[in-house]
Amino acid sequence: MFRATLSLPARPRGLSPLTPQVAEQVQRAGIQEGLCNLFLHHTSASLLIQENADPDVLHDLEAFLSRLIPDGDPLFRHVAEGADDMPAHLKTALTASSLTVPLGRGRLLLGTWQGIFLWEHRDRAPPRRLTITIIG
Amino acid sequence: MFRATLSLPARPRGLSPLTPQVAEQVQRAGIQEGLCNLFLHHTSASLLIQENADPDVLHDLEAFLSRLIPDGDPLFRHVAEGADDMPAHLKTALTASSLTVPLGRGRLLLGTWQGIFLWEHRDRAPPRRLTITIIG
Amino acid sequence: MFRATLSLPARPRGLSPLTPQVAEQVQRAGIQEGLCNLFLHHTSASLLIQENADPDVLHDLEAFLSRLIPDGDPLFRHVAEGADDMPAHLKTALTASSLTVPLGRGRLLLGTWQGIFLWEHRDRAPPRRLTITIIG
Repeated sequence: MFRATLSLPARPRGLSPLTPQVAEQVQRAGIQEGLCNLFLHHTSASLLIQENADPDVLHDLEAFLSRLIPDGDPLFRHVAEGADDMPAHLKTALTASSLTVPLGRGRLLLGTWQGIFLWEHRDRAPPRRLTITIIG
Repeated sequence: MFRATLSLPARPRGLSPLTPQVAEQVQRAGIQEGLCNLFLHHTSASLLIQENADPDVLHDLEAFLSRLIPDGDPLFRHVAEGADDMPAHLKTALTASSLTVPLGRGRLLLGTWQGIFLWEHRDRAPPRRLTITIIG
Repeated sequence: MFRATLSLPARPRGLSPLTPQVAEQVQRAGIQEGLCNLFLHHTSASLLIQENADPDVLHDLEAFLSRLIPDGDPLFRHVAEGADDMPAHLKTALTASSLTVPLGRGRLLLGTWQGIFLWEHRDRAPPRRLTITIIG
């Protein structure tokens, strides 16, 4: 078993690539075959596996989700932390805090077009903590 | 390896805390390091990791999702089990039936503000079965 | 540990049952107790656990999600691969690429009404690759 907790520097709202940071820990772990779990210790940012090729995909994911769950919706009671806070909780609820990816020959078995992303839902986000656990 | 299946008493529609019940099983298991998987054996209720502090967050999550996926939408063909049944399937599809959380020093490594919840999507729900599996 | 990668023949848009193919690999693996992870190596199709009884549920899931995330939404910049491509990425983002199910006595511990499905989001999809990993 291997576990590492990373502190990810604050990112702008939207999708930021995370595959290199995860792949580095997988290499450090030295476990050849098994499962790699990623767990984000937050409720207003999430993890996503999505296309790593065309940056327009990342733009459209953010644009669509922010239209579906708009900042400042008058439905919300939880507004003390800002107009983007409750939408951030909802976006996290509809995506994932935890992802599990198979490992083979010491590498993440992602598809050709798959990348791992941090999806930051806050406008002025703090750094985020991510735990990587590998079981072989 | 540890596995336990719990019967959760029927809850009202909306989010009910589940962290204490899961933490109790983690303590019983006595496994110090590893992964804890939660699996709900149903298709009209789901599992969620979300903010455990302000109850308004729980209210807003339920209010938003029930506005997005309204009871009795005329689009639905599957209506024999009630106006809240097909929305319950959709809400489950857009959230999670299975969650994996890392364990360290014999405890769930949740973030400060993270709690585990059962999200009941039916108005008159039955008891729900949850399986907790821990691999160390 | 057991791992197998399957090539799933191209399916029409919508939900196709996957439980038999997964159950067959679980039987081959011969592992009695543990966790079974399913990982789909794509960004425009997803995995879902949902009701395996009434086909109307499958129809309604597809109809609702395709109304929520319509083909050809003018918001999208990523349009070169067709009007159904960016919606397929979004539908995948809001459902799952990776699912973990507990195993007991050598069988998937699904609920009575739960089935595993491939949710194909493209109109003219290619075959899809699925990796099944079992840790006991």
